[in-house]
Amino acid sequence: MSITVVGSVAFDTVETPAGRSERCLAGAATYFALSASFFTDVRVIAVVGEDFGPAEQSVFDAHKVDTRGIERAPGKSFFWQGSYLDNINEAKTLRTDLNVFAGFEPKIPAAYADSEFLFLANIDPVLQRRVREAMPGVKLVAGDTMNYWIKDHRPALLEVLKGLDVLLINDTEARMIAGNNNLVQAARAVMALGPRFLVIKHGEYGATLFHSSAPKAGGPEGRTFRAPAMPLERVIDPTGAGDSFAGGFFGYLASQPEPTPGAFRRAMFYGSVMGSFACERFGTERLQQLTRAEIDERFHAFRELTHLD
Amino acid sequence: MSITVVGSVAFDTVETPAGRSERCLAGAATYFALSASFFTDVRVIAVVGEDFGPAEQSVFDAHKVDTRGIERAPGKSFFWQGSYLDNINEAKTLRTDLNVFAGFEPKIPAAYADSEFLFLANIDPVLQRRVREAMPGVKLVAGDTMNYWIKDHRPALLEVLKGLDVLLINDTEARMIAGNNNLVQAARAVMALGPRFLVIKHGEYGATLFHSSAPKAGGPEGRTFRAPAMPLERVIDPTGAGDSFAGGFFGYLASQPEPTPGAFRRAMFYGSVMGSFACERFGTERLQQLTRAEIDERFHAFRELTHLD
Repeated sequence: MSITVVGSVAFDTVETPAGRSERCLAGAATYFALSASFFTDVRVIAVVGEDFGPAEQSVFDAHKVDTRGIERAPGKSFFWQGSYLDNINEAKTLRTDLNVFAGFEPKIPAAYADSEFLFLANIDPVLQRRVREAMPGVKLVAGDTMNYWIKDHRPALLEVLKGLDVLLINDTEARMIAGNNNLVQAARAVMALGPRFLVIKHGEYGATLFHSSAPKAGGPEGRTFRAPAMPLERVIDPTGAGDSFAGGFFGYLASQPEPTPGAFRRAMFYGSVMGSFACERFGTERLQQLTRAEIDERFHAFRELTHLD
Repeated sequence: MSITVVGSVAFDTVETPAGRSERCLAGAATYFALSASFFTDVRVIAVVGEDFGPAEQSVFDAHKVDTRGIERAPGKSFFWQGSYLDNINEAKTLRTDLNVFAGFEPKIPAAYADSEFLFLANIDPVLQRRVREAMPGVKLVAGDTMNYWIKDHRPALLEVLKGLDVLLINDTEARMIAGNNNLVQAARAVMALGPRFLVIKHGEYGATLFHSSAPKAGGPEGRTFRAPAMPLERVIDPTGAGDSFAGGFFGYLASQPEPTPGAFRRAMFYGSVMGSFACERFGTERLQQLTRAEIDERFHAFRELTHLD
């Protein structure tokens, strides 16, 4: 089944203890699309500027990603500059130029209308909602958000949450949305706002899948599931790890005949796998060069890392 | 096989968001011994004061813990007062009265000499080393330490590390010992100081087992193993969770005919299980009332929480 993703296609300049990368192809929709493309067909809705050339286009083409929904606008693409020199786990934003993204009006090609899966990457919740409403036929909708929207655009975000099946966020974002520091209680509060499934990402410690029908009496077990992350000896650039996780998670789910509990569990592992690959090179470099065989090899390594027998 | 543990038997007064507990029976050796007692025979070396009465003795007796190595000294037992009101994951120490612990000279009963396993709980590394050297016949030695010894007693601590097979510490302690923020690199540096096995505890995110012979070329997989922690809806008192983890981990290992890789993996799960129980009541209350059936039930819940099939 095919996934439509709406989000940013951008250029990033990133500094980490491993070095510096200038204007590499990035953006949440790019990471998501490349990651998911290893599992299923992906279609992108975004806007880029005149600096998005044949080299960038060829990255999407090489992964058979449908880019008919990427609008070319006069001006420059979204640009972000960040540094991880102080803390490899948290980017310090040095510069954000919205450029053509400032006036982004998502346009959905007619050919995308039969997508069964929709991913609303981290953008203005007003736009997320507009795309969600324009694609009423989708079977499963997942989304992401960030501290900025949680703090300053809460009413619009709450509208988006109502329409989500799956929300993927990190610990801090879950605690912020819920106003509760206990992760299990926060998860329950977030799911009460809409999403039936909640994936909370713990960075290098993995991720937890919560389900709103997890039996209260039985405690936190039930349908809760925890996938590991790989302890990485060398993190080159953590940018996009969360979007790559989402791409692996949602891409794998879309590749399955039914979103069964078992499929969700394996999807959590594939998410972790894709997130770990993303960190191994600057920008989307590692995802660009990846093979499905490498993905499955790491999937088995993760299994080995955490399974008793 | 039996375990001898040396460490503190103490009284704690603890405040958490869930309430306050006055002078409850605590101390690293107490948590460790009660936890390990569900798996194997445990013998304790410690010192207590005149405030350690029949009620406290009966807690050890009920778990068939050998207390012949607990010396009764004139004065009061070690007392600690802490608060988790600001941060449930990190205690703020309000008061530490060493009392009889100030002059602690571990005395090892002759009957303990045939212990195959030795656990050096978090005490002055000079004492840890003395006990280690007095028990040359043990097969497997594990130990713990804390930021205070790492910062201010490094030479003595390094001597202890040389004699350890297994070191159990948390992320911050591993990074402090190694002077390296990358956990995989820090693990390797710590193991280069002595212990062949290193268990790094990640609090609510579980724990990772590293082994010094993990193949470099194969990357971080190999013998690395990650056990989950249970997402807990309600943490009453996290004091002693690490010591309870150590008791479950080492107690289970000691109960096995051989410390095989499979036994180490299951031991990591049992450690996580015992750590999660410890948090459910103040002090050692939950461990006092626990049954082996509850332990095995949670072991299977942990398996369910993290296993794909």
